[in-house]
Amino acid sequence: MKFTLHQTDTSTAARAGTLTTDHGEIPTPIFMPVGTIGTVKGVHQSELKEQVKAKIILGNTYHLYLRPGMETMEAAGGLHQFMNWSGPILTDSGGYQVFSLAHRRKIKEEGVTFASHIDGSKHLFSPESSLGIQRSIGADIVMAFDECPPYPSERKYAENSMHLTHRWLERCVAFMKESQPKYGHSQALFPIVQGSSYDDLRRQSCEFIASQDQPGNAIGGLSVGEPIEDMYRIAALCCEVLPKDKPRYLMGVGTPANILECISRGVDMFDCVLPSRNARHGVIYTRQGIINIKNARWRNDFSAIDDSATAAPTSQAHTKAYLHHLFRVNELLGPQIATLHNLAFYLALVTEARERILDGSFSSWKEGAMAGLERKL
Amino acid sequence: MKFTLHQTDTSTAARAGTLTTDHGEIPTPIFMPVGTIGTVKGVHQSELKEQVKAKIILGNTYHLYLRPGMETMEAAGGLHQFMNWSGPILTDSGGYQVFSLAHRRKIKEEGVTFASHIDGSKHLFSPESSLGIQRSIGADIVMAFDECPPYPSERKYAENSMHLTHRWLERCVAFMKESQPKYGHSQALFPIVQGSSYDDLRRQSCEFIASQDQPGNAIGGLSVGEPIEDMYRIAALCCEVLPKDKPRYLMGVGTPANILECISRGVDMFDCVLPSRNARHGVIYTRQGIINIKNARWRNDFSAIDDSATAAPTSQAHTKAYLHHLFRVNELLGPQIATLHNLAFYLALVTEARERILDGSFSSWKEGAMAGLERKL
Repeated sequence: MKFTLHQTDTSTAARAGTLTTDHGEIPTPIFMPVGTIGTVKGVHQSELKEQVKAKIILGNTYHLYLRPGMETMEAAGGLHQFMNWSGPILTDSGGYQVFSLAHRRKIKEEGVTFASHIDGSKHLFSPESSLGIQRSIGADIVMAFDECPPYPSERKYAENSMHLTHRWLERCVAFMKESQPKYGHSQALFPIVQGSSYDDLRRQSCEFIASQDQPGNAIGGLSVGEPIEDMYRIAALCCEVLPKDKPRYLMGVGTPANILECISRGVDMFDCVLPSRNARHGVIYTRQGIINIKNARWRNDFSAIDDSATAAPTSQAHTKAYLHHLFRVNELLGPQIATLHNLAFYLALVTEARERILDGSFSSWKEGAMAGLERKL
Repeated sequence: MKFTLHQTDTSTAARAGTLTTDHGEIPTPIFMPVGTIGTVKGVHQSELKEQVKAKIILGNTYHLYLRPGMETMEAAGGLHQFMNWSGPILTDSGGYQVFSLAHRRKIKEEGVTFASHIDGSKHLFSPESSLGIQRSIGADIVMAFDECPPYPSERKYAENSMHLTHRWLERCVAFMKESQPKYGHSQALFPIVQGSSYDDLRRQSCEFIASQDQPGNAIGGLSVGEPIEDMYRIAALCCEVLPKDKPRYLMGVGTPANILECISRGVDMFDCVLPSRNARHGVIYTRQGIINIKNARWRNDFSAIDDSATAAPTSQAHTKAYLHHLFRVNELLGPQIATLHNLAFYLALVTEARERILDGSFSSWKEGAMAGLERKL
C-alpha cells in the first residue's frame, strides 16, 4: 500500500493525498461507508459505486465472524468475492463490537472472551485471532486489535488500557509478519492510538504507534460520548504527532461538520454509521441544512430532494414530498433513497474538500460551508 | 388507447399484441408489477425500468386515496409525476381493498361505505368517486368500480352482485364520458367481468361487459380461493366470449405456471403481488424451479442466483450463498435483490411467451417450461 501526499493546506492542517491499494486508488480525505455484515444497509453494490461513488467500504469483523462465519467466507474467496465488491475494503478488529454488543466479556492479557449477542456462544478475540479473521475476510486494510476504553475513564484505567493496546499491537505486527494474505492481494495493518481524553497519554500512544512504522495509523477511542471540543483537540494533537507521510484514520466520526473540522486538523480517513443510520430514520443532509423528512412541512414540497449536481441521481429525480410520503407509509424505498442520498452527500463533501485543499481555497470554503451543515431546516 | 393484435397461436388461444398508451407501448402478454402506495416495494423506479424491464405498473386507488391523499396527488401533477415513473400506469378501482382491508364496510346501491384501516375514518367509494380518484391519480388505464364476491358465493348472491357490478359499470361509463383527464394524457376504462364460479353468470357478464365497448376488458373475482381448475376454466370461458380485438386483463393472477396457463387460454395482461411478496420471504423463481433461499442448502452455493441472460443484473452478479446470508442476517438488501429477481423473472417469462407466440413455438415451449416452473428446489 502506498500513500502519496499531494498538498497540505497553508492555513489549516488539511491534506490531500492518494492511497493506493491492490483494489484501486483512494483519494483522501475520504469517507468510508459502513458495510456491517457484508452489505451497506439498503444499498446495492452497483449503487455504491455509481451513485454514492464510494472508493472504499468497511466490513465489521465481529459480525462477519459470527455470520456468515469464516468457513463460508473462505469458501467464497473472501469478502470482495462474497459480496461482489471490487473496490478496497477496510475491516475493524472486532474489538469495538465486543465491547458494545457482546455479552459477558472478560479482558485478559491473552485477549477478550465474550458471548455472541446472537446465540450466546462463547468466543475469544485476541490480536492473533482478530487478524487471522481479517486475513480470512481479505480486507485491504486491517485494524489492530485494541481496547477502546469508555468515556469517561479514570486515568489509571486509561493508562493501563493503552499499554495493553500497545502490547497487543506488537503481537499484531508479529502476526502480520508471520502470516500471509489468503487471496493474492496485500493487506496493510493500521495500528490504533488510544489514551482516552488524556493529552499526555494520547501523545505517548501516538509515539508508540508511530514507532511501529505501519502503512497507516488510526485514532480510536473518540466519538464515544466525550465533549466535541475534546474530540477536536485530541484529533489535532494526534495528527501533530503521527507521521505526515502516512494516512490518518479517525474511527467512527461523525457528522458532516465533524468531518470538515477534523479534515482541517489533519485527518485523512473517516467512517461512521451516522449517515446511513440517520437516513433510515428520515434525517437527510444537505448543504443548506439538515432535513427531517418525516416533518409535515415537506408534505407538499415538490422540489427535488437535492438538485445539486453532486447529489445522488435518485435525490435529483425524486421530490421531498415523495420521500416524505414513503417514510409516512413506511415503505422500504424511503430508507433506500435516503441512504443513497446521505452517503452520496458525504462522498461529495469530502471530494469537494479535497478539491479545495488542492486549489488552496479549503479554509474559506469550509468557513462558508459550516453554517449550512449545522442548520436544521 | 390502441390495441393491435399481431398473432394468435394456432394450437392454443394465446395472443401477442401491442397496447399503445400516451405513456408508451405495452407488448402483450404482459405482467404488471404492483406499486401499491406509489412504490413497488424495495425497487427504485430506475431499476423497474432498466433491470425489471417493466412496461406498465399498478397503483392501488384505495391506498393512494388514503395516503398521500388526492390533494397532494393533484398538487404533484398525478402519480406519474409524484413517483417519477414515465411509463404507463394502471389503477384498480379501490373496491378490492375495501373488501379485503377496510373495516365496517356496507354495500349499497350508491356505493360502499367503509372505515379506513389506518385511522378508522369513514369514506364512501362509488363508481363516480372511484373514477374521480383515478382521474386525480392520472392512470393510463382505470378500472371500473365493481363488487368482487368472496369464494364460495351462493348463486343468488353472485347473481345479484354481478347485476350490481353491471349497474355500477353503466355509471362508470357515464362518468368517464362526462369527465375529463386532468393531466393532458388519455385514460382508458376497463370494465370487469364478475359472476363468481358460475359459468352461465360469467358468460352473461362477459356479454354485458363487451356490450359497453370499452378499450379493454378485465376478468375479476378469480384467484380468490377457488380450485385452480375453476380459475382456468372460467378464464378460458371469458376469453371465448370477450372481444378478440381488445386486451383481456386477468386480475390478481398468479404463479409463473398460472400465467403461462392463462396466456394459453387467451389472457393478455396480469398483475399479482406474489412475485414481490414472496421475494420478501426469500422465495425465488427460476426456470429450473422454486428456491427458498433461507434453506441451509444454499449456504455455501456460490453459483449465481440466476445466470440466464434475461435475469436481473443483480441476480447474475450475486451468489445464492450471498443472498442466503442477507436473508439470514435480515438485511434490507436481501428483499431488494430477491424482488428485483422475481419481477425480472416474470417480465422475462411473458417476454419469451410473446416471442414464442410470434414464432409459432408457444405450445411446445410452454409444455417444456411448466415442469421447471412448478418444481421445488
